[in-house]
Amino acid sequence: MNSQSLAPEQLQTLETELTTAYEALKKENLKLDITRGKPSTEQVSLADNLDGILNGNFISDSGIDTRNYGHLRGLPESCKLGGEILGVPESQVITGGNGSLSLMHSVALLHYLYGYNNQAWQQLDKPTFICPVPGYDRHFSICENLNIEMITVPMTEAGPDMDMVESLLKTHPNIVGMWCVPKYSNPTGSSYSSETVERIAKLGKIAQPYFRVFWDNAYAIHTIEESPEKLSNIWHACQENSTEDSVWQFASSSKVSFAGAGISWVAGSDSNLQAFEKLLGVTTIGSDKVNQLRHHRLFPNRSALVSHMQKHANIVQAKFEIVLKVLNDELQEYGHWTEAKGGYFISFDSQPGLAKNIEKLASEAGLKLTPAGATFPYGKDPEDRNIRIAPTFPCVEELEKAMEIFAVCVKLATVRKHLH
Amino acid sequence: MNSQSLAPEQLQTLETELTTAYEALKKENLKLDITRGKPSTEQVSLADNLDGILNGNFISDSGIDTRNYGHLRGLPESCKLGGEILGVPESQVITGGNGSLSLMHSVALLHYLYGYNNQAWQQLDKPTFICPVPGYDRHFSICENLNIEMITVPMTEAGPDMDMVESLLKTHPNIVGMWCVPKYSNPTGSSYSSETVERIAKLGKIAQPYFRVFWDNAYAIHTIEESPEKLSNIWHACQENSTEDSVWQFASSSKVSFAGAGISWVAGSDSNLQAFEKLLGVTTIGSDKVNQLRHHRLFPNRSALVSHMQKHANIVQAKFEIVLKVLNDELQEYGHWTEAKGGYFISFDSQPGLAKNIEKLASEAGLKLTPAGATFPYGKDPEDRNIRIAPTFPCVEELEKAMEIFAVCVKLATVRKHLH
Repeated sequence: MNSQSLAPEQLQTLETELTTAYEALKKENLKLDITRGKPSTEQVSLADNLDGILNGNFISDSGIDTRNYGHLRGLPESCKLGGEILGVPESQVITGGNGSLSLMHSVALLHYLYGYNNQAWQQLDKPTFICPVPGYDRHFSICENLNIEMITVPMTEAGPDMDMVESLLKTHPNIVGMWCVPKYSNPTGSSYSSETVERIAKLGKIAQPYFRVFWDNAYAIHTIEESPEKLSNIWHACQENSTEDSVWQFASSSKVSFAGAGISWVAGSDSNLQAFEKLLGVTTIGSDKVNQLRHHRLFPNRSALVSHMQKHANIVQAKFEIVLKVLNDELQEYGHWTEAKGGYFISFDSQPGLAKNIEKLASEAGLKLTPAGATFPYGKDPEDRNIRIAPTFPCVEELEKAMEIFAVCVKLATVRKHLH
Repeated sequence: MNSQSLAPEQLQTLETELTTAYEALKKENLKLDITRGKPSTEQVSLADNLDGILNGNFISDSGIDTRNYGHLRGLPESCKLGGEILGVPESQVITGGNGSLSLMHSVALLHYLYGYNNQAWQQLDKPTFICPVPGYDRHFSICENLNIEMITVPMTEAGPDMDMVESLLKTHPNIVGMWCVPKYSNPTGSSYSSETVERIAKLGKIAQPYFRVFWDNAYAIHTIEESPEKLSNIWHACQENSTEDSVWQFASSSKVSFAGAGISWVAGSDSNLQAFEKLLGVTTIGSDKVNQLRHHRLFPNRSALVSHMQKHANIVQAKFEIVLKVLNDELQEYGHWTEAKGGYFISFDSQPGLAKNIEKLASEAGLKLTPAGATFPYGKDPEDRNIRIAPTFPCVEELEKAMEIFAVCVKLATVRKHLH
């Protein structure tokens, strides 16, 4: 909506109508939550067969007794599955525990404390990560926690602004890494174009040797539409450019099997994996191989995985449609958003300066939104406009109500701004 | 054996006999391993019911859907179980993933990077841990990996030499921590006396505020004999001395359920746990709650746990007896050892300067021993005499053969030393 489009008295009338609607919603004493990218109960139930799937046989096809100690890199079967998801051979994969976040933190710690050729990030003056924004708050927290500074670059529909990334790397030797969610990005839903992937694979040529891309392919197989977007293979691109050491890849089954009890993967070059394995050997007895075997039995091959993900897609798609319908029907004039073809989020940009206000209005009407700013480093959205909508967890009725509140709050915040 | 006890020609005859026996054993081309404290297949099988135990019900008694995200501290039921093992209320426990080693590393990292009242260990000049020796190599590796120096104090049958510990703390402000395995210690099998526990609880009064005891109660319930040794409650002792912040406790079900797929616990004061939870929130999505629920179903209360541990004891006791019989029958004159009443190890001390040699002889005869020196920081046993025997993993026949080789190697190394 445009302040020129309505006369002041029309604006006032609209404000009154919206306030009435808003107050009526408040009276419903709702308690709704669209904050986090959590799968719904219906989704996690799809993997209920995991418990009991071993049927008393704890020995892997590779002959490993999964109950006992050992095998730091995880079951070969699990590394193979991770390799299929990430597009690398089994030999380039280590299988981890129930979340890739721990793997990302551990890899960051490896570089921070010890580094490549002993060039530890902590020894640099202001080690800095490039953070495409809006992005994922937990990535930013890892940096903040290790005192790694963050420089933002804008996300476009084809991925991060690569001109800016390349220029930063050429001028800032203290840049040690870059966060990437290359497919159905959190939160914009965009996927990196082939050109972007190619240019990222080439960063290793212009960056310092301690620079690492953290390629968090969290939504690698989380397609909603029938024809999945095809992401170029970063590993192959790195091989062509001899920059294999410059990229760490991550994925997990958190939004495939159980959100809190899946398995995870990290992939990288031989020398990267060897260095990581050394740290792993100090910090852990190895990941839960029994759970790895369970996942192998549930997903013995890629086609089992794909057909499982289709069931997720059917559930998630209905929810994305509810959100997009409200945005399209109600909020065309009040902001813009991406029509994600996969992943877990829809990213909404209000008019500048309104996100915190919308969050507050929604909260007072019983709807919890992801805190405004969360999609930016240090929780600071310089334009105060980005709101991440996570539609998957609530049931359809709750989501419909949540979006009704959301629409009223966005409109009310916008109209009030133009009135004052 | 004593070099004065035999005439030179008798020694030579003995050497010839032992060499013949040794060469005969070598010809058997054996491949035996008593290096690590691994439960046997028979032992891990005791918990096979874990898989499938949920019977489709993933909701905890506390009403948590274990499949989804959230609940960083773990299931209340699991914290309660950990509290029973460690002797603290449920409120003082966080339940972790499949190994307490990760928890220990994370807690060390917490203090190293951030510290107590922002007094991070890394900011001190040569932060140092007190390490009772012989001790556990993986503890030492955590220190070495974080560049934390180590000072050793001798283990006695009542625990670490506390006079030395107290004196070190009074004179060395850079001492930041101390490793303890208070019950059936790794490797000596000794348990700390009530007096030792009391004195450790008082260390917080003489130490710097950033000093922490790492109380790794790995064998809390791993009794072999019928009447378990009673370890004084360190938490209660700390409460009496108002030193609750000075002790972190750890335990796991690794040697209760599955070695590689159990659950683990860390216990501490409110302020310690709050600080740790903050770090956990950055580094993990939380531990595997489905596996926590499985463990709760298998061990709904302490008595279920105790009767399960009795089954372990029956298996382990037979193996300890094999080792002790050989030591008592054959090696009285060649070294000394502890008769552990629980835990996973028997610690053998040869005459000084022989451990590496015994390890080498054994290895050449097909028996892998824990590397000599492994029970000391940096792998350096100053007297080169300690060998940790881990009898649990091999089957009875293999263990008997392993001990036959061990005895011949110890004797041969000793006799040869006296001959030269």
